[in-house]
Amino acid sequence: MASEEGVIKIIRNKQVILRDYVSGFPKESDMQVVSSGTIKLKLPEGCEGVLVKNFYLSCDPYMRGRMTKCDPGTRYLDSFNPAYKRIWSGKVLESGDPKFKEGDLVWGITGWEEYSLITGTATQSLFKIHNTHDVPLSYYTGILGMPGMSAYVGFYEVCSPKKGETVFVSAASGAVGQLVGQFAKLSGCYVAGSAGTKQKVDLLKNKFGFDEAFNYKDEPDLDAALKRYFPEGIDIYFDNVGGKMLDAVLLNMKMNGRIAACGMISQYNLEQPEGVHNLLSLIMKQVHLKGFLVFNYYHLYGKFLERVLPAIKEGKITYVEDVAEGLESAPAALIGLFAGRNVGKQVVVVSRE
Amino acid sequence: MASEEGVIKIIRNKQVILRDYVSGFPKESDMQVVSSGTIKLKLPEGCEGVLVKNFYLSCDPYMRGRMTKCDPGTRYLDSFNPAYKRIWSGKVLESGDPKFKEGDLVWGITGWEEYSLITGTATQSLFKIHNTHDVPLSYYTGILGMPGMSAYVGFYEVCSPKKGETVFVSAASGAVGQLVGQFAKLSGCYVAGSAGTKQKVDLLKNKFGFDEAFNYKDEPDLDAALKRYFPEGIDIYFDNVGGKMLDAVLLNMKMNGRIAACGMISQYNLEQPEGVHNLLSLIMKQVHLKGFLVFNYYHLYGKFLERVLPAIKEGKITYVEDVAEGLESAPAALIGLFAGRNVGKQVVVVSRE
Repeated sequence: MASEEGVIKIIRNKQVILRDYVSGFPKESDMQVVSSGTIKLKLPEGCEGVLVKNFYLSCDPYMRGRMTKCDPGTRYLDSFNPAYKRIWSGKVLESGDPKFKEGDLVWGITGWEEYSLITGTATQSLFKIHNTHDVPLSYYTGILGMPGMSAYVGFYEVCSPKKGETVFVSAASGAVGQLVGQFAKLSGCYVAGSAGTKQKVDLLKNKFGFDEAFNYKDEPDLDAALKRYFPEGIDIYFDNVGGKMLDAVLLNMKMNGRIAACGMISQYNLEQPEGVHNLLSLIMKQVHLKGFLVFNYYHLYGKFLERVLPAIKEGKITYVEDVAEGLESAPAALIGLFAGRNVGKQVVVVSRE
Repeated sequence: MASEEGVIKIIRNKQVILRDYVSGFPKESDMQVVSSGTIKLKLPEGCEGVLVKNFYLSCDPYMRGRMTKCDPGTRYLDSFNPAYKRIWSGKVLESGDPKFKEGDLVWGITGWEEYSLITGTATQSLFKIHNTHDVPLSYYTGILGMPGMSAYVGFYEVCSPKKGETVFVSAASGAVGQLVGQFAKLSGCYVAGSAGTKQKVDLLKNKFGFDEAFNYKDEPDLDAALKRYFPEGIDIYFDNVGGKMLDAVLLNMKMNGRIAACGMISQYNLEQPEGVHNLLSLIMKQVHLKGFLVFNYYHLYGKFLERVLPAIKEGKITYVEDVAEGLESAPAALIGLFAGRNVGKQVVVVSRE
């Protein structure tokens, strides 16, 4: 697909676009795979951007927020239309930016499409990948990218874990949760996780080394479930779900506990978020609850890689991906995320390397 | 009332006792003033405790929590029965503790009664008062005691204010709120407060120097009210009330905002706490919400006094008390707190110095 000498290829650029803003639970039909757009496989004259071919795309819960129409400036990311923007990894075809050159492997944020022309400030959130021989490139959409950094920042920077502390993780088999649990074990903590199927619960215990795990759908009383796994309370809660689980956790926090609010997937598709009733526990137990946005912590990315890359290579940290093949499968993969159908990190293969 | 030479006085010791644990809104009739108990105005032989005569007692919202029956160990303070324990200031009549001597003025936590014998670990939370000539003794139940420390810890330690930031305080004319607002002005912040009567709103603006103030009962839409006073959002929220106000504040926090959860008086008398719906804002705005218990910060008491005492003497900080006369008026004074009848810090005079 690269341009041949003297010939500039203009090709169809398959894309997934959002038909319209979404309210409530998103459906596959809210999205559409189109091949009507074309792209010139050549940077425009004088352009300082980067032309990339996309290999892997990421499906992440935060994307739901970007499908909702909202007033500009009222959200941390503006809504986007028509094409999604999402995390991806791929290869530079041509670059007008001195930081990148042809053949570089990169990851960052772009449209949901086969080829992308990244220009302006968007190139600032483009990361060069230096170690492709050691780990699969798709890892940079997950454990070595934004979700991995979310686990790292939320656990280490927000929660300051100490050896022997008790840690609870919700949505624990997801891209972020699976890594949080493994960080907790590496830090000498006790860790229990919740997930929504027996298969995921088994993964937590048998693959990721969680001390305990439970299927929250089997628990009519979440408070009782937490008391079973944390008879003396929770020091650290890594919250990926919000809502009823957060409410139950609040009743089980230990004195001086910490909660990293990373995501609230249980709330994203509701017209009106559920009420959380037990906030008084924050005072009674002197709890520190901190929301965080990973993109404010990318100055720590190098430090993060230094910790995680060797651990992956040495087999001390493991990783499970749920891989969907082809851009056509992307809408279903994204919807599946909100129904909990993915097992592990949801990735879409656009094109093999 | 002091013992005369060779004679040990045994006198009636008037007390307020709780008839039974309370659920819902407390009533005066939940309490009873009794004179049936007697106390020997002499330390028992070999006792290392302190015998004190009480002058001023404090009414504080946190006391409501101690009127509810709950399982031991599930709350930060155990329920108490039959007599209240509350903050007071008074004079040592006799001491078996080398840290105190007859005539010392002290403040701390004791029963709601005329005379108290303080023994064991309770003497550890007894503070000697060194500067009675400068400020009224009753101040040690409020601005120079636990409520003052709550304002100090919550504002400076939890919220780390910076010059030019915007600060919102609820229950702003109360013992804690009035001081938070003044700290905010001394720190070069913009501050607005909410209260429940026109008189209190006037106090905030004309006495305590708040930039703006509003009566939350006049505001059908708290979100709109906050947007009026904080068109660019809130950096720091000092929360004394919880519930609906907290929910509205969450929609108006600025990026990297901080919330000190000091109290939630709007929730204390409800059978089931209200739901708070807007917690997703904690993530979107990367907000830090921290509950705190002032008794874990008393190591800072000296530092606090150094900041506040000179400011009071120089007139840079002012203080408003609502004084009820006599132990008989104490039950009504406490109930009044939950109905918002007090204007400023609610104090009960047991006996003039």
